[in-house]
Amino acid sequence: MGEHILALSGGVGGAKLAAGLAQVLSPERLTIAVNTADDFEHLGLTICPDIDSVTYALAGLNDVQRGWGVADESWQAMEMLGRLGEADWFNLGDRDLAMHIARSWRLREGASLSDVTARLTNELGIAHRVVPMSDAPVRTQVLTGDGWMDFQRYFVAEQCEPALREIRFAGVSDAAPSEGFRQALDREDLAAIVICPSNPYLSVDPILALGGLREALADCRVPVIAVSPLVGGKSLKGPLSKLLDELGKPQGNAAIAEHYRGLLDHLVIDTSDGEQAEDLRCETLAVTVCDTVMRGPEDRARLARDVLAAAAATPG
Amino acid sequence: MGEHILALSGGVGGAKLAAGLAQVLSPERLTIAVNTADDFEHLGLTICPDIDSVTYALAGLNDVQRGWGVADESWQAMEMLGRLGEADWFNLGDRDLAMHIARSWRLREGASLSDVTARLTNELGIAHRVVPMSDAPVRTQVLTGDGWMDFQRYFVAEQCEPALREIRFAGVSDAAPSEGFRQALDREDLAAIVICPSNPYLSVDPILALGGLREALADCRVPVIAVSPLVGGKSLKGPLSKLLDELGKPQGNAAIAEHYRGLLDHLVIDTSDGEQAEDLRCETLAVTVCDTVMRGPEDRARLARDVLAAAAATPG
Repeated sequence: MGEHILALSGGVGGAKLAAGLAQVLSPERLTIAVNTADDFEHLGLTICPDIDSVTYALAGLNDVQRGWGVADESWQAMEMLGRLGEADWFNLGDRDLAMHIARSWRLREGASLSDVTARLTNELGIAHRVVPMSDAPVRTQVLTGDGWMDFQRYFVAEQCEPALREIRFAGVSDAAPSEGFRQALDREDLAAIVICPSNPYLSVDPILALGGLREALADCRVPVIAVSPLVGGKSLKGPLSKLLDELGKPQGNAAIAEHYRGLLDHLVIDTSDGEQAEDLRCETLAVTVCDTVMRGPEDRARLARDVLAAAAATPG
Repeated sequence: MGEHILALSGGVGGAKLAAGLAQVLSPERLTIAVNTADDFEHLGLTICPDIDSVTYALAGLNDVQRGWGVADESWQAMEMLGRLGEADWFNLGDRDLAMHIARSWRLREGASLSDVTARLTNELGIAHRVVPMSDAPVRTQVLTGDGWMDFQRYFVAEQCEPALREIRFAGVSDAAPSEGFRQALDREDLAAIVICPSNPYLSVDPILALGGLREALADCRVPVIAVSPLVGGKSLKGPLSKLLDELGKPQGNAAIAEHYRGLLDHLVIDTSDGEQAEDLRCETLAVTVCDTVMRGPEDRARLARDVLAAAAATPG
């Protein structure tokens, strides 16, 4: 087994494992490529929820109680924006706002999202590489009974209530993987690709939809290992269970295995779903059962170690 | 005497009298035209310090203790911006930030500063008209030993320490008065023009430097009345006294009278400077002595009434 690990991550759940990997791997041994299809423009700011979740988790700034955003957050600007008649459906904390402001003005000055992300993570003392999946804008849109809507409107304003019929990633056909992502994929010393426990349809699919990415992973000489976002058949956060229903997918890890078929070599599922292991396991898919719930830094590091050990035991 | 009053205002001191005028005049009787030459672009936001001071004062949101910004302010975004390596020389409160965000995205979408100002003041329940002096960008720059620098850098970052040799208003030759300002000037029922107690060189001069404005005021059929920003020979806030020295001007209200010569009909000076009244008074300049220090809403309203009474007794 070589030296470098490439992790693909969405927001909250993915960010936790990304932070765990950063705890157990030195900076030169890890690249975290993050979904940017949840990004959106709001009140003149470019907001990148998944990059922010990963950044806050790695910097130890994430709010553990609330499960998203920055710890010790306040909401004074938001309250005032409401008084000024501005849109208030997307909660912007005062500390979080600083990130959006710092990012937005630099993007507007012409910096790439990769440059801005490197700068901001570096300023927060993060030594590991956090790279956007792409520097080109990709925007998730969902088809509901009300027609196509932007992801954040569905996810935050509508709280995932409208039944979802279809998902598309606007702009993805023109979006290439970012240079940092591509470089990690091409490394001679790449040892494994870890798909973090993020929503396969909403958080990982946009990454796989980048030109040639799914094929590159399927043909990859190193093992691709995914941690299922399901625990006891349900997602701990987010709309995954509801979404499996609405998209007509099987419930449980069968859906995850099916979704990643052809590119996945190893699936890590939670102990609470252990009885599914035998049905999932096949010639081309190894299955590891362990505790995947990450309550704090110790859990994150333990799961990261379990995943790396499982990857090391997997042929590519 | 007709019905309408046009007030010209800069920041803090001017904003207090503007608020006093709004206390004693119904909305249809007052237009407040505000200096915009202190405006600047910072971290991708368009910040209009004088419009904000006037807005906060009229909405009752101004911080009385600190003397600037919003009451009950917090500084979480600013602290985080510092951690992110962003410029921290200009203090941005969390509540204040909401104003800059709301303004900036609408300007970027193509709204005029007049439209945005009308909207934001209206949302905060301000019924009186607050108009920018111009919709075109005008930017004060000052010449110091280090060359020309932008006003906010001199005023905030350098705390007015470099000796000031010259002041210029970049962009003013291409800037017309805003439509709301022009309309107030042209009103048939205009009764007086009140120059609020703001710095004549830094806050009022940019307004007078707009094409034809100084001449329009000089030829005006209605009285032009100014409240001196000096109290006991000094400015209560800001660099005016230091600036009179550096520009080689006389100290005291003689400098104010000289500066507005040819357009001013009436000068209101503070009781503490009452002994200057006789020297200032001449055929073309009436002088009123009264208490011009505004400690709270009662003082503001009283001074507003004194000024309006003085104006009513002045020929144009």
